[in-house]
Amino acid sequence: MLEGIYPPIPTPFGGNGEIDVEALAENLSWWMSYSLAGVVVLGSNGEAILLEEGEKLRLIEAVRTGVPEDRAVIVGTGMPSTRATISLMRAAAEAGGDYALVLSPHYYKGQMSDDVLIAHFHAVADASPIPIILYNMPACTGIDLSAELIVRIAEHENIVGMKDSGGNVVKLGKVHGEFGERFRILAGSASFLLPALTVGAIGGVLGLANIAPEECLEIGRLAAAGDIDGASELQIRMIEPNTAVTSRWGVPGLKAAMEMIGHHGGPVRPPLQPLGDEVRGTLRSILIEAQILDPEKETMR
Amino acid sequence: MLEGIYPPIPTPFGGNGEIDVEALAENLSWWMSYSLAGVVVLGSNGEAILLEEGEKLRLIEAVRTGVPEDRAVIVGTGMPSTRATISLMRAAAEAGGDYALVLSPHYYKGQMSDDVLIAHFHAVADASPIPIILYNMPACTGIDLSAELIVRIAEHENIVGMKDSGGNVVKLGKVHGEFGERFRILAGSASFLLPALTVGAIGGVLGLANIAPEECLEIGRLAAAGDIDGASELQIRMIEPNTAVTSRWGVPGLKAAMEMIGHHGGPVRPPLQPLGDEVRGTLRSILIEAQILDPEKETMR
Amino acid sequence: MLEGIYPPIPTPFGGNGEIDVEALAENLSWWMSYSLAGVVVLGSNGEAILLEEGEKLRLIEAVRTGVPEDRAVIVGTGMPSTRATISLMRAAAEAGGDYALVLSPHYYKGQMSDDVLIAHFHAVADASPIPIILYNMPACTGIDLSAELIVRIAEHENIVGMKDSGGNVVKLGKVHGEFGERFRILAGSASFLLPALTVGAIGGVLGLANIAPEECLEIGRLAAAGDIDGASELQIRMIEPNTAVTSRWGVPGLKAAMEMIGHHGGPVRPPLQPLGDEVRGTLRSILIEAQILDPEKETMR
Amino acid sequence: MLEGIYPPIPTPFGGNGEIDVEALAENLSWWMSYSLAGVVVLGSNGEAILLEEGEKLRLIEAVRTGVPEDRAVIVGTGMPSTRATISLMRAAAEAGGDYALVLSPHYYKGQMSDDVLIAHFHAVADASPIPIILYNMPACTGIDLSAELIVRIAEHENIVGMKDSGGNVVKLGKVHGEFGERFRILAGSASFLLPALTVGAIGGVLGLANIAPEECLEIGRLAAAGDIDGASELQIRMIEPNTAVTSRWGVPGLKAAMEMIGHHGGPVRPPLQPLGDEVRGTLRSILIEAQILDPEKETMR
Repeated sequence: MLEGIYPPIPTPFGGNGEIDVEALAENLSWWMSYSLAGVVVLGSNGEAILLEEGEKLRLIEAVRTGVPEDRAVIVGTGMPSTRATISLMRAAAEAGGDYALVLSPHYYKGQMSDDVLIAHFHAVADASPIPIILYNMPACTGIDLSAELIVRIAEHENIVGMKDSGGNVVKLGKVHGEFGERFRILAGSASFLLPALTVGAIGGVLGLANIAPEECLEIGRLAAAGDIDGASELQIRMIEPNTAVTSRWGVPGLKAAMEMIGHHGGPVRPPLQPLGDEVRGTLRSILIEAQILDPEKETMR
Repeated sequence: MLEGIYPPIPTPFGGNGEIDVEALAENLSWWMSYSLAGVVVLGSNGEAILLEEGEKLRLIEAVRTGVPEDRAVIVGTGMPSTRATISLMRAAAEAGGDYALVLSPHYYKGQMSDDVLIAHFHAVADASPIPIILYNMPACTGIDLSAELIVRIAEHENIVGMKDSGGNVVKLGKVHGEFGERFRILAGSASFLLPALTVGAIGGVLGLANIAPEECLEIGRLAAAGDIDGASELQIRMIEPNTAVTSRWGVPGLKAAMEMIGHHGGPVRPPLQPLGDEVRGTLRSILIEAQILDPEKETMR
Repeated sequence: MLEGIYPPIPTPFGGNGEIDVEALAENLSWWMSYSLAGVVVLGSNGEAILLEEGEKLRLIEAVRTGVPEDRAVIVGTGMPSTRATISLMRAAAEAGGDYALVLSPHYYKGQMSDDVLIAHFHAVADASPIPIILYNMPACTGIDLSAELIVRIAEHENIVGMKDSGGNVVKLGKVHGEFGERFRILAGSASFLLPALTVGAIGGVLGLANIAPEECLEIGRLAAAGDIDGASELQIRMIEPNTAVTSRWGVPGLKAAMEMIGHHGGPVRPPLQPLGDEVRGTLRSILIEAQILDPEKETMR
Repeated sequence: MLEGIYPPIPTPFGGNGEIDVEALAENLSWWMSYSLAGVVVLGSNGEAILLEEGEKLRLIEAVRTGVPEDRAVIVGTGMPSTRATISLMRAAAEAGGDYALVLSPHYYKGQMSDDVLIAHFHAVADASPIPIILYNMPACTGIDLSAELIVRIAEHENIVGMKDSGGNVVKLGKVHGEFGERFRILAGSASFLLPALTVGAIGGVLGLANIAPEECLEIGRLAAAGDIDGASELQIRMIEPNTAVTSRWGVPGLKAAMEMIGHHGGPVRPPLQPLGDEVRGTLRSILIEAQILDPEKETMR
């Protein structure tokens, strides 16, 4: 059962621009030293849309190797066409993926009526050997799935949960009110993890969990213990660094932060561009201020 | 100090379309039988924008008469021009208003830069004999004040809090992180009251509190007691009726619901139009389902 | 019959912030020296939303005095409530207004369904002694009337035309295709006057016509003569200065430009703020580049 | 030099869902019987985003075979990553493509600053053996390139023009004012072809040209002859059918219309869904009303 904190991991590239499997293995080894429930590979933070098909398959395998069987490997398998989505999903299942995270198709926005989206998700769910997690990511897709649509999509028994990055907690509450524990809601950003937990979420797929896994886990623990004041203090402290590595500076920010805390980030793939020096300085200050980066322990890189 | 639940009250009109002061007095008497911290008069739910100047002054006086001195009368004083805002605010203070709730000017959207909005709010705050509460209402104004702008506006010592109806809990957390308890954050909708309380809000100005004051108060009590599960259950139950009397059917929905629970709603003022019979039936079902309306006790009206 | 170019005139304030009727008279005298078909008073450019009721009535009278009977005085009469709109419209008619320009109500956006807007416009049209011109101004109202809705509203015989500031020429073509010459379409901005004329518009209400009346008239003349190349050259030259006094710097830009060309602008009313010195310099350069301001002839003010 | 009308052709699939090269050849033969300046393959109308890499290459070759050397084959080569775009562009050039039409990358919207987009387009233009045409398609990408950004991108000498589907004619005029004839502006929709021609466009890439090539060509001829009234009448008549096969019913509408006029459409690829019977009936009526489909000559299919 989905529950807990899952980092949507970045894809480390080497100096030649190709996937650096060793760097990935080291990152995974570090993440797995925390009580994370698993990882998401090929998400937006993984630059999935910028990868070639062969790269995707290699990545899934490398991640499965680095994640113990008792933790979940969730694979981003959303593609523009229904058939490509199904094809990638099957490959993901064969390579040991536990769940498929399926982004809504979005290019032909004007034609993506509720009925069209339901047909897509149900066709995908019918064909999938592994359970499906809906992925609502309006900041990237320009389409924000409504509570009503999510409920209709989720009627399919092979669709077991959703990652929502929209941040509309009212929507989360509505969906939870409809299904209760049977449909697993994952907050899509650490900036609203605690609010989401109060309206039915059972964890999160959190970019910030890549660089601050313990803090993300602790918010969940404090909330479960009824310590709202403690959880609130930590939640608010995490907003600024979360924004820095998500909406503000995106994957370039996340990869730079990975490097700052002593793990592997590496270059981004164009059109994404690396952070400039000034922005890196600001990011570093934000991480220190949030107590994610300890300037005393920082190593030269 | 602002804290607790404040209903933004509707303005009852009689059959002739004019303000019905007696109906208002009866509503106030009922609301005041609960532990509400006060009321908001001349808010969006009060059809303030559809009222004439004389009507506004009469309303403030009538509300002050019906609300004990130890509870707050918050008066909506936002007007399109800075000088009209100041003028109404002074009248509100003279009539016994405790706070002025000031909506952002918004008609000339293209010119409403951060600097222009700051100049407006600071001019208003300088001139006001009573403390100012910011009012962020993007669904009506088309302008969503950013966390950064709110922080700059709130540096003025006579601006003591904000009502936010945007529902972006991350923004609330950011603002609270900046000011702590000195700047009072009020959730602008009951649909995200509990999530807002977990990121620093100290109460709410809630349309739903007009028809379900006890439920709104109870969410606050449960949260304060650390009973997240209990608060969550009640919060989720309140989403549907809250939507019904706010974003879905607006003031016409709120007034119809007031009638259904045995208090005074009356007609809306055009261009607003009353609910049709079918919608009224749906609304009634929603109120019953949410246990706000008890069909056994319902009286014929 | 509506046809030709109408400047939506700014409202000159004196140093005390009150309406300067003499300055207005001089401006009108200058505008009337061109072949303009009339003027619009109390439009967005006239800061109508920032004026008090008494000021509005004085303005209408002053404008009627300065505009010959054979040219049209179009009066902006849109107010948030239906009854206030009707009241102002009647006053406008009594004061000699020829047409009422009615902005769509927009505060309660969520409730402004097609049926609600139709009810409003038809109630207003029923009550009006003078013909109604629809005013679609999405940049200010946040509501963009669709072609289908405009067609339904325009079925009322007392609604004789529309000013569209949205700039969607396809919409203009659709509406013209439905009604032909019976429904008069006025471009709401000089930046798309020529394109609008090619899909059925018969003129425009153009902020730019306040400072460049001859150029606006000439675009119309060249188009009527089939000289698309000539019209195109002039149209393109007018885009930059038009943007400067409309979407870019708004009424503050328009008033500053009025001063630069030797007529009366005066201060804006807050929350609007005057242009800073640097922006004024840029504006001046734009006007010179577009040949609207002749630096040789420029007088000190 | 780019000039004239180019249909962005649909990709015919057979009953098995795979590309039907013979159907394509017949369509091309029919289109080439008109004075079209060339075609666009792998555009949005070609379902490019739903095709696999091998399919794309086969399509380019098939189209080059069916289009005479003196007419242009424009190939949509926009891909999410810069390197995939360059790779496809080179393949397109080798297969005989004359121009590459490059859609703006858009998935990581928050990171697509002007500088990032310029870096992408310039890298692509540097690497391309054939000239580049910018493709601004906000309805699909959620990103609307500003006039200022277009001007900066277009400073690269290998970027020779743009297709704009946004429909903002003011933007087209601004860009034309900057570059004149050196930068070729193509209207991206037949619904605003005539207005675009009056502000500097020299033709269009028009979905409607697939089913009404002669009407699209005639609008251009009438405009060139200074017959604005004639062009206007035809332009307005084309709005409704254009909307039907573009924004309203998209590629499914276009393919159904291709079948109705006696050429090859075939199924769409999911997530796109075929039109239902009722919608097909409405579409047919629209085509008849616009005189694109002659019910007398209609054949059974």
